[in-house]
Amino acid sequence: MVVSSLIQRKRDGGALEPDEWRGLIDGYVAGRIPDYQMSALLMAVVWRGLASNELGALTDAMVASGERLHRNRLDQPVLDKHSTGGVGDKVSLLLGPMVASCGVAVPMMAGRGLGHTGGTLDKLESIPGFRTALSLLETEAQLARLGCVMIGQTPEIAPADRKLYALRDVTGTVESIPLLAASIMSKKLAEGLDGLVLDVKTGSGAFLPQLDSALELARTMINLGETRGCRTIALLTAMDRPLGRACGNALEVEEALQGLAGEGPKDLMEVTYALGSEMLVLAGVEPDLAAARRSLESAVSSGRALETLSKIIEAQGGDPAVIEDPGILPQADAVEVFRAPASGTVAEVNARTIGAAIVELGGGRHTMSDTIHAGVGFVITVKPGDEVAARQPLASVFARDDAGIALGLDALRRAIVIGDQGVALALVSHRVTAAGIEAL
Amino acid sequence: MVVSSLIQRKRDGGALEPDEWRGLIDGYVAGRIPDYQMSALLMAVVWRGLASNELGALTDAMVASGERLHRNRLDQPVLDKHSTGGVGDKVSLLLGPMVASCGVAVPMMAGRGLGHTGGTLDKLESIPGFRTALSLLETEAQLARLGCVMIGQTPEIAPADRKLYALRDVTGTVESIPLLAASIMSKKLAEGLDGLVLDVKTGSGAFLPQLDSALELARTMINLGETRGCRTIALLTAMDRPLGRACGNALEVEEALQGLAGEGPKDLMEVTYALGSEMLVLAGVEPDLAAARRSLESAVSSGRALETLSKIIEAQGGDPAVIEDPGILPQADAVEVFRAPASGTVAEVNARTIGAAIVELGGGRHTMSDTIHAGVGFVITVKPGDEVAARQPLASVFARDDAGIALGLDALRRAIVIGDQGVALALVSHRVTAAGIEAL
Repeated sequence: MVVSSLIQRKRDGGALEPDEWRGLIDGYVAGRIPDYQMSALLMAVVWRGLASNELGALTDAMVASGERLHRNRLDQPVLDKHSTGGVGDKVSLLLGPMVASCGVAVPMMAGRGLGHTGGTLDKLESIPGFRTALSLLETEAQLARLGCVMIGQTPEIAPADRKLYALRDVTGTVESIPLLAASIMSKKLAEGLDGLVLDVKTGSGAFLPQLDSALELARTMINLGETRGCRTIALLTAMDRPLGRACGNALEVEEALQGLAGEGPKDLMEVTYALGSEMLVLAGVEPDLAAARRSLESAVSSGRALETLSKIIEAQGGDPAVIEDPGILPQADAVEVFRAPASGTVAEVNARTIGAAIVELGGGRHTMSDTIHAGVGFVITVKPGDEVAARQPLASVFARDDAGIALGLDALRRAIVIGDQGVALALVSHRVTAAGIEAL
Repeated sequence: MVVSSLIQRKRDGGALEPDEWRGLIDGYVAGRIPDYQMSALLMAVVWRGLASNELGALTDAMVASGERLHRNRLDQPVLDKHSTGGVGDKVSLLLGPMVASCGVAVPMMAGRGLGHTGGTLDKLESIPGFRTALSLLETEAQLARLGCVMIGQTPEIAPADRKLYALRDVTGTVESIPLLAASIMSKKLAEGLDGLVLDVKTGSGAFLPQLDSALELARTMINLGETRGCRTIALLTAMDRPLGRACGNALEVEEALQGLAGEGPKDLMEVTYALGSEMLVLAGVEPDLAAARRSLESAVSSGRALETLSKIIEAQGGDPAVIEDPGILPQADAVEVFRAPASGTVAEVNARTIGAAIVELGGGRHTMSDTIHAGVGFVITVKPGDEVAARQPLASVFARDDAGIALGLDALRRAIVIGDQGVALALVSHRVTAAGIEAL
């Protein structure tokens, strides 16, 4: 196999054969194919795209580069959810315990903050002692015992994806629908899932803001999953504004705990119930979405979901006292209220501006070696369309010092636009299945 | 400077600033920017191209990465020729001594065989003892003394080009008009030329077979040269069939010696005179192309050009006895005549097939570490349009053994097509200057 010839073929718009993709991935993971050839090939893929059978072969090779989660002791269906990433998106923290409480095993393999978006791992690690780096054996054991585990990608799972992702991050080759789909689906398929529900974000704060790109990513991932024995559906949800009120690691954990206690913000709970209902129906434990939603609501109102989260926290080394006392989470040293500069209607709460400001406050990373300050962030109590009076409190900034407060207030001034009318995407706008796209 | 952001900008069709190109090239040569980022950027350039000011900045940065040839002791004009590469193209071997004999200094920095094309360095090195690796000081001294030197790219000249070219060769990023132009022109500009004549090949045996691509490459290089104080013109010449009769390193040296002795094949001499005349006029030593041609013809008929070559060979460690006795060149162990399979008109002599067969015979390289067998190749005595009778000798194969003879005969059967009529490109079809394109 002459790698430069394969690069040339892809560059010229041709397709590589499945065994060529296997050879490329195997050779890359084994170190026989150097980074500089792989990065040129990846840029050619960004340019030319991948045919469906190429994408399948690439994804299969990435899965085959590592281990799969074993489910030998599990008689429950195994499902997961994946979000393409947003601001204030703490859905995973609620959904894992809720769905597990309804008899479905959820091996939630999550990620870290990326760009302006937060990451479930960073949020979980704001809980004192919480370990997200479990071995494959620990993961399988906890999944069998508690029905849910919330971890980072283990070294055994899809090592090709880890290596490729690190390369793509520094070579301008992240933004490619087939490469995004292969990366996400290789990890999810390695979990050995029966089904997967995708939360594909749209709007200005999403990685793919345009509806057509979001739909294409959804369809691409659904096709990959369905042809590989994993029932897959997607909901397109709004990321033009933050989800819920809290944005920032510890603040979001606190809001997730409120949600599991039945006191979550309406938009956060709607998205969580919508995704969870799809999971229960896909899993076959509920006959329809309405019944599934009642089941999830009962898991919350009965306290079972919160109890499951408590057990997960304890099993993974965290302090379950956080559930009774969120005050043990890292706290900001400085807090300041942001007030409406004028009366009017909230036209916009720009999620991307808020997310970028959290990174600047120290709540995210510029490089992978940066330390996160988990207590910083925002709580924003208004949504597009809300009527506000001048000087009315709209949000709070949580920062490490006065400079952070100034930075945060400036971000809020830019992010929260007061105007004549609010413009916002529908919270859950489309449902995509193998059968087609349904506008909701 | 965040390299990944620059890659993304180029990927998305934007332009990089001149100081960004400088920073990229400086950082790459210094080892601060890794190969894997550069190869991704190069693929994005293949995709998106380069704006004129980007190409200029890149080329300037490549020139500035190394030394320039000093011309302090030279009062002659300094000119060079560059060919985009072909089969049977031994023009440089004749042109350097001929033009130097007419009062123009020619610092001929040449290349090695690449793909199916031959390289001037490999041809020269078939002369026993000939050294093509001179230092910059040796080069300058010989140029001042003899008016011509024929060498490889010294380590001091455009090291950025050496490093980039090696990377492009294995990452599918060779075939890009701006990258080809930057590579060629960075070396030529570092020679400190007053003028440059480009021999841009067209037709099936050229790297860019299509006329429009060849014209674009010519215009791109002319613009680069003219805006940097180097008068530049291009002739487009035919590479649908081999140039001259001999194809293969030592065979071509022998044919070049015949040419300087006044006995060269007509097509080879026509191309050589056409390019050389342009050089003399550009240099200002002759008033027009007709006078320049007479001057070159006199350099040949008087024996001055051959005498100059003899001195060059001697100065560079080669055995000048080769001029009287080409039999001291490496010889093939096996020779066989190829005869016309039928009567008719020669429709085609496919240069690419011939060039690829020379590599297979051992006369070229698959990888840079391969050793060349200089004696192998072909002498093809027919051209498209020639009438031939069945069983008439059309060519000879020069090989290392019987297997090579079989391989060579098979290549000739495929390359030489007998049909009803010959189809051939005009030998010198276009003249391109800063003022425009002239069809000849």
